[in-house]
Amino acid sequence: MALHPDRLFPADPGTRGIARRLYGAVANLPIISPHGHTEPAWYAEDKPFPDPAQLFVVPDHYVFRMLYSQGVPLEALGVPRRDGGPTEADGRTIWRLFAHHFPLFRGTPTRLWFEHALESVFGIDERLTDSNADRLYDRIADTLGRPEMRPRALYDRFNIEAIATTDSALDDLGHHRAMRQSGWHGRVVPTYRPDAVVDPDRTGFRDNVERFCALAGEAVSWTGYLAAHRARRAAFKALGATATDHGHPSARTADLPPGEAAALFDRVVRGPASPADADLFRAQMLTEMAALSVEDGLVMQLHPGSVRNHNPLVFERFGPDKGADIPQPTGYVHALKPLLDRFGNDPRLTLILFTLDEAQYGRELAPLAGHYPALRLGPPWWFFDSPEGMLRFREIATETAGFANTVGFNDDTRAYLSIPARHDMARRIDCNYLARLVAEHRLDEDEAHDLAQDLAYGLAKRAYRL
Amino acid sequence: MALHPDRLFPADPGTRGIARRLYGAVANLPIISPHGHTEPAWYAEDKPFPDPAQLFVVPDHYVFRMLYSQGVPLEALGVPRRDGGPTEADGRTIWRLFAHHFPLFRGTPTRLWFEHALESVFGIDERLTDSNADRLYDRIADTLGRPEMRPRALYDRFNIEAIATTDSALDDLGHHRAMRQSGWHGRVVPTYRPDAVVDPDRTGFRDNVERFCALAGEAVSWTGYLAAHRARRAAFKALGATATDHGHPSARTADLPPGEAAALFDRVVRGPASPADADLFRAQMLTEMAALSVEDGLVMQLHPGSVRNHNPLVFERFGPDKGADIPQPTGYVHALKPLLDRFGNDPRLTLILFTLDEAQYGRELAPLAGHYPALRLGPPWWFFDSPEGMLRFREIATETAGFANTVGFNDDTRAYLSIPARHDMARRIDCNYLARLVAEHRLDEDEAHDLAQDLAYGLAKRAYRL
Amino acid sequence: MALHPDRLFPADPGTRGIARRLYGAVANLPIISPHGHTEPAWYAEDKPFPDPAQLFVVPDHYVFRMLYSQGVPLEALGVPRRDGGPTEADGRTIWRLFAHHFPLFRGTPTRLWFEHALESVFGIDERLTDSNADRLYDRIADTLGRPEMRPRALYDRFNIEAIATTDSALDDLGHHRAMRQSGWHGRVVPTYRPDAVVDPDRTGFRDNVERFCALAGEAVSWTGYLAAHRARRAAFKALGATATDHGHPSARTADLPPGEAAALFDRVVRGPASPADADLFRAQMLTEMAALSVEDGLVMQLHPGSVRNHNPLVFERFGPDKGADIPQPTGYVHALKPLLDRFGNDPRLTLILFTLDEAQYGRELAPLAGHYPALRLGPPWWFFDSPEGMLRFREIATETAGFANTVGFNDDTRAYLSIPARHDMARRIDCNYLARLVAEHRLDEDEAHDLAQDLAYGLAKRAYRL
Repeated sequence: MALHPDRLFPADPGTRGIARRLYGAVANLPIISPHGHTEPAWYAEDKPFPDPAQLFVVPDHYVFRMLYSQGVPLEALGVPRRDGGPTEADGRTIWRLFAHHFPLFRGTPTRLWFEHALESVFGIDERLTDSNADRLYDRIADTLGRPEMRPRALYDRFNIEAIATTDSALDDLGHHRAMRQSGWHGRVVPTYRPDAVVDPDRTGFRDNVERFCALAGEAVSWTGYLAAHRARRAAFKALGATATDHGHPSARTADLPPGEAAALFDRVVRGPASPADADLFRAQMLTEMAALSVEDGLVMQLHPGSVRNHNPLVFERFGPDKGADIPQPTGYVHALKPLLDRFGNDPRLTLILFTLDEAQYGRELAPLAGHYPALRLGPPWWFFDSPEGMLRFREIATETAGFANTVGFNDDTRAYLSIPARHDMARRIDCNYLARLVAEHRLDEDEAHDLAQDLAYGLAKRAYRL
Repeated sequence: MALHPDRLFPADPGTRGIARRLYGAVANLPIISPHGHTEPAWYAEDKPFPDPAQLFVVPDHYVFRMLYSQGVPLEALGVPRRDGGPTEADGRTIWRLFAHHFPLFRGTPTRLWFEHALESVFGIDERLTDSNADRLYDRIADTLGRPEMRPRALYDRFNIEAIATTDSALDDLGHHRAMRQSGWHGRVVPTYRPDAVVDPDRTGFRDNVERFCALAGEAVSWTGYLAAHRARRAAFKALGATATDHGHPSARTADLPPGEAAALFDRVVRGPASPADADLFRAQMLTEMAALSVEDGLVMQLHPGSVRNHNPLVFERFGPDKGADIPQPTGYVHALKPLLDRFGNDPRLTLILFTLDEAQYGRELAPLAGHYPALRLGPPWWFFDSPEGMLRFREIATETAGFANTVGFNDDTRAYLSIPARHDMARRIDCNYLARLVAEHRLDEDEAHDLAQDLAYGLAKRAYRL
Repeated sequence: MALHPDRLFPADPGTRGIARRLYGAVANLPIISPHGHTEPAWYAEDKPFPDPAQLFVVPDHYVFRMLYSQGVPLEALGVPRRDGGPTEADGRTIWRLFAHHFPLFRGTPTRLWFEHALESVFGIDERLTDSNADRLYDRIADTLGRPEMRPRALYDRFNIEAIATTDSALDDLGHHRAMRQSGWHGRVVPTYRPDAVVDPDRTGFRDNVERFCALAGEAVSWTGYLAAHRARRAAFKALGATATDHGHPSARTADLPPGEAAALFDRVVRGPASPADADLFRAQMLTEMAALSVEDGLVMQLHPGSVRNHNPLVFERFGPDKGADIPQPTGYVHALKPLLDRFGNDPRLTLILFTLDEAQYGRELAPLAGHYPALRLGPPWWFFDSPEGMLRFREIATETAGFANTVGFNDDTRAYLSIPARHDMARRIDCNYLARLVAEHRLDEDEAHDLAQDLAYGLAKRAYRL
């Protein structure tokens, strides 16, 4: 295999030459990772990573969902059961199973990320197969013990300038505080994710709200609850947070009169919330969050449209985030109107929109972002953070929204070792796209250089106020 | 014209070279045709095909819909009227009209299939025009009479290894039985299509159900009706069937308690079924069919989302399948949940999903198929079984679902002579797609060779258990 | 910058060579502009255009929406306020602001149209920057005063053969009449746009209907109202109109019995109309308009799916058409059925369908247009009238609908100077698409020449009966 220097560039030699020049100038820029799911504990504790299977297979739902779809039981891949029932514990056995099924990943970004990590971190340039599985396992396992493989060392090696984690509004941010107090130079910042206290359909919602208000020393009332948000946001901000994030089933927003909002709060907290009330409360809270963002300057992110835990058997046995979240059609034009009516023209707000519904790039999202000062388009998310997915996004969104209404790249990953691979892929694909514009005389090459720089670095830094 | 050896390959010379090599290795693989609409009678009776117009124009709604859209009456194309009213009977006159309007097919797959058949079956490498229409008519008509043009001879010449027909659950399978008894070596197998006894909105539904139960010697009751399905499926299986097929307006499924299902059956059979009951019955029956597939191993195919007979004038005058079926938006994520909750994790079930809603490739279908062990994605269907349509499918679905969750190609045709053309087009486009992955260093060429083989042959054979 | 002769052609040298040959033969064909928004007064009065900012920035919502999305107030761009409040009046100041933000347009069609106009009309081949803004402003301003820059002179210079304006059903067509009476040779024809008297949700609907009936000397009754349409359409036709145009929130049609339609008319005119009645009346009126088109031969255009004036602050302060119209999902298959049931098979009707919902090109629109004799597909509209948008349209629609069910290009613009740029872009992209078909041996080059001619000229002329 061996990573080819021209990978992900267009095949036409003229266009490829342009892509190479553009990429050459951005390949080594620092990484800004403004949205992701790495663990604060890694940076705080700086402990070595466990075995290769725990690193590449067990926690990565991109990996095990594909194997599961082809009949491999999650137990055999070491995915822990909720009931503590038996699952494969031997890393080598799991790794062999992964190696055996590795051809399933042909044509997927997972394959490209994995091989990028293998070669750039472990110096391995062979394709994983049944026959070399054991040898590669040993080599990775040996390497994992070395000091340069610790999270903080990798932070430097990966040339990360800033990285955001995603943290529950209920989190005490102990790891973030410890990290700060340790005097380490890395910039790892939290992100305020209040879903657990905003979504009445979450298990334990009522308890969550009580803990949340208690944490902030506020009463469990609409006013107290809002004050608790204000306080927790400030606590996040004090530890470097520049953004909030909201994972909702839809993009629905609402803007109720205060009395109605308070009554709604009382109903959903008293519980059980009716589906209509739960939905309305989530909708109202997006607008409340925008109001607080206008106050405190935290950038707001909205990730809507995923039907979570679609497979009840998998959910019951293994819990959430096990590869069974499926997108659904997601509207924005009507859904966002209440929030936009109030804050869409306010330059103090930045609301970054994501989607799992690619039909919306051109139909609603680019037209909205190309008009409202408060809106920006997040990069392709989840299933679409891939070579073809990123190209489609640029090809569809740019002509209406331009580049300035987008926000660069998010790696959005819990797979630490894949971070350089993901940013490298995004940079290559953006240069691929820009090179085509230059080759077709739709853009001059000096402009493409500016843009490549912005897409790889500047836009994320500015949009997320990092 | 003359079929160019590089047709449908990408223009970039480097990529084209790769595509040529990949295609070279799969061009002559046998044809597996696991879903289609050829007539069992052809293989059973082995009679010569009639004149060129009856072969290429009159029965092919891809052809006459385009002419009709430009103002050519269906009567002038020889399409039979339900009332026996006058339609053009002279093959040569119809052929001339087709030739005159042949430029309408520029840029369509119909054009490419037609010319492939002309050249490969009849040795004609001229473009059809007003001036050569008569000459080509004569040449085709002459050839049609020869022994090597009989259905069985063409089966061998086309290098078909197995082909499935689509047969009503009410069909006595007489032609299939005759074929088997004849000792012919061809493998032509039926497919169980129970729409006539599953969809209460079909004309004659009640009578159909009565005939159906009678055919199996069962009472007209919910239990008897299910037993009749079991019996008829067994009869199909005994004649080689490996699959069922279901054409529904939507992908809705239901999983009612047995008592409710029985009551629903009674209501829809008593008739007239309310629209809600009709829809619920179809939904329930998909889950029942999945249950039977788990028992008997027949692979289940679902073709949803077509609004049938949209044009009442055409329907009234000419009947169904006259080019007036129009796709509508089709959801899967919520629609399939009842069935998947019950059988989605069951490795004994293979449910192959088709769509006429391309927005679903990436949004719902690839994520579903990339997770559930029971799901596979059928190839692009109907309007999208075309060069651009097939490329879009690969570009959108592969990154999430991989190749292994797809099932190779279906020609899905009643146009016997177009079968090699359609498979050739699919093989070329798959090699086109794979060549781009190789040229962009996203896949190694040896892997692309494996995949090309699988896409052309192996996947269909395995997915359909042929 | 300097317009490159190969701009918008594919990069692959072989394919580019084909595109060049195809384009060479159509580059200088006359312009047929069958749908647009230029002002009849321009041609009637033939006065010079005002300053560069009034020409390129102030009236062009493609331009100011992008600047607004990045925080530039519309007042600073000279957009007039409804309340007469202060806005920037100095053209040079506005121009400088535009120049400063010009990089926002990288990758957008606006950029390409603007530079085409700069170079081809003003001989300017520099990229607009802060530093040359004043110099370019002066150069354009100087040129604007010359006789060859008057609307009629430009009509000839642009090689326009016919151009349609869009005119309210309430318009007295004074400018059109004056133009005709002046003896000028230009063919500028009106288009009948009755939205103001068809959409009960429009401000002043009731007054509009009264004025409308009065204009035609008819009573305010259902019968009088229909007669008024007949009369006004005839008046438009007498001044050269060949088409009507309908901007509706959806594509819904209805076909009520006359008595119900009359009662509905009474309710909506008495007002205030309920949302359901307003929607039903619009739906009914599309079918009525089709009936009148069958009578008088005016081609019918339907532009559905835009949520108008999404931003209440912008609407209140600046009025409609200020860049805040956002597309929404738009269905056709069920929505058009009542109209199609009645007139879909009637060759006297031509109904040209537009969409802002690209997911419909393949799913509903191409299948509908590829069947119904009365239907044609309009070119990509608004946000999708762009290089990528036009390519997507061809790639998705052609395989099902062919070329003959499309109608060539619409520039749909109020920016007179962008007309040649927009037609040039469309011709280049069509040649780009055709060249790929030729390079991939899906079409012969002589056929591509025919088609390029048709797409650039013949189809629009025939479809719009010009």
